[in-house]
Amino acid sequence: MRFSEYLAAQRQRIETELHGILPSEATPPEVLHQAMRYSVFAGGKRIRPLLCVEAARVISEEVAGIERAACAVELVHTYSLIHDDLPALDNDDFRRGRLTCHKVFGEAMAILAGDALLTLAFEVLANLPCVDSERRARMMGELAAAAGSCGGMIAGQVADLEGEGKPPEPGRLETIHRAKTGALIRASVRIGGIYAGADGEQLAALSSYGEHVGLAFQIVDDLLDVEATSETLGKTTGKDAARKKITFPAVYGIQRSHELAEAERRAARQALECFGNRAVRLAELADFIVYRRA
Amino acid sequence: MRFSEYLAAQRQRIETELHGILPSEATPPEVLHQAMRYSVFAGGKRIRPLLCVEAARVISEEVAGIERAACAVELVHTYSLIHDDLPALDNDDFRRGRLTCHKVFGEAMAILAGDALLTLAFEVLANLPCVDSERRARMMGELAAAAGSCGGMIAGQVADLEGEGKPPEPGRLETIHRAKTGALIRASVRIGGIYAGADGEQLAALSSYGEHVGLAFQIVDDLLDVEATSETLGKTTGKDAARKKITFPAVYGIQRSHELAEAERRAARQALECFGNRAVRLAELADFIVYRRA
Repeated sequence: MRFSEYLAAQRQRIETELHGILPSEATPPEVLHQAMRYSVFAGGKRIRPLLCVEAARVISEEVAGIERAACAVELVHTYSLIHDDLPALDNDDFRRGRLTCHKVFGEAMAILAGDALLTLAFEVLANLPCVDSERRARMMGELAAAAGSCGGMIAGQVADLEGEGKPPEPGRLETIHRAKTGALIRASVRIGGIYAGADGEQLAALSSYGEHVGLAFQIVDDLLDVEATSETLGKTTGKDAARKKITFPAVYGIQRSHELAEAERRAARQALECFGNRAVRLAELADFIVYRRA
Repeated sequence: MRFSEYLAAQRQRIETELHGILPSEATPPEVLHQAMRYSVFAGGKRIRPLLCVEAARVISEEVAGIERAACAVELVHTYSLIHDDLPALDNDDFRRGRLTCHKVFGEAMAILAGDALLTLAFEVLANLPCVDSERRARMMGELAAAAGSCGGMIAGQVADLEGEGKPPEPGRLETIHRAKTGALIRASVRIGGIYAGADGEQLAALSSYGEHVGLAFQIVDDLLDVEATSETLGKTTGKDAARKKITFPAVYGIQRSHELAEAERRAARQALECFGNRAVRLAELADFIVYRRA
């Protein structure tokens, strides 16, 4: 199967699983569940769950139910977008070409929808049917640490807010992105590995892959904000610069940022060498992350 | 030991444990960790962790480390207060006699501090050292369901917001409070039971106790909003009425609400009968919850 076909098929399985996980819009409180579904089904690329599923498949062929665990990561990602977009934080009206959650449902509902998605992510992992409690508890610990305030996503969000208008230094840039996007992407890969029973060495290789791919993802994200048109990207472009955010192009320039992304892509692939042919899809995902146009 | 002495000693243990769990104010991001600590150490009564610890002690004498699990519930409770107080929700400037989190640290930091406390709660449970993974996973499932959007705390918060200005009907009142405060109080007791290895019958008795004590707690909370002075309560009183919230006094009147609280207190004690003398502290906690003046 070609990578593009595989990607479409795997995404479809994740969409189906997400539909099963999210409470129906007819379940009270209806408007909250509508808000949660509005943001989860807003055309995300599902990169994190894809990474989770493929990391698991590298370790074992017996990973029935892995999509459900992978969706937990996507729920955390979606919650973070909803809260980031709030007026008190990034104050974004559009994301992926659609109005942001608070623009449609109001601030109160957007705050609560984010809270509910974060909570649901842990409920999903706690109750996974196909994996033992030891692995479930470990996956929850991974997710919480990656989403948390000590080097995790929330730490990155605070550093990002505090960094606005500060000098674009490489050290600050790395600190922000290692936490803000890197930690959850790394955790996506590790959660897949844990689900499939990876040993310490395998988990270390997956972590290295996750770190490189996470950094590559962020560099490309920053570049797309500069280079892509608003139409392609579905959100206002050039906003990072307008807000004086610390970005890779701001620190290194566009050409050097492209080179850095390429270097991270190669390093990510290199981390997979110990897995041989079994890691083909994971390697292709690294390419996809770097060569995407939106 | 008299109940008041016991209460003070047990609270002290919980405070100590919370201090150990919360990241230091010197750990980056400093301002976020300051905001988290500001709200966690704002003079809460620690009713939920006290219930959790005592529920565990009813089931077993071997509950080393239970305070840590109990703190997870308090973290979730604190996160819910921070988010409830936000301008987009209840817009409260004071709580427990102090400025609310967003008044001191700004809205962005308050949103993120709440997010971080919720996340930390699951991290604490995932990594509990003294209890096996099966119980840890079950406790996390309990906490997530109680905090979640399907009959849990978030469902109650939405129902509360939507109920403002609506006719004060008994059915609506019960739906709101069973979810908004009842679910987490019930979960506090159940998490203690699970930690200590309660069997199905014991857990059912604890759940019944938790439901009655949770309802009693809310009735008394509503009564205090009407009857106490702002000084005693440390927050603006009479706000429920000003906001046309659906409360027990609004639905049943003050006298009948007192009777209802007393009935719930008795029912809570009755649910403990199967435990005999071992449940003395838990019974006293029910009295404390109903007879408190703040």
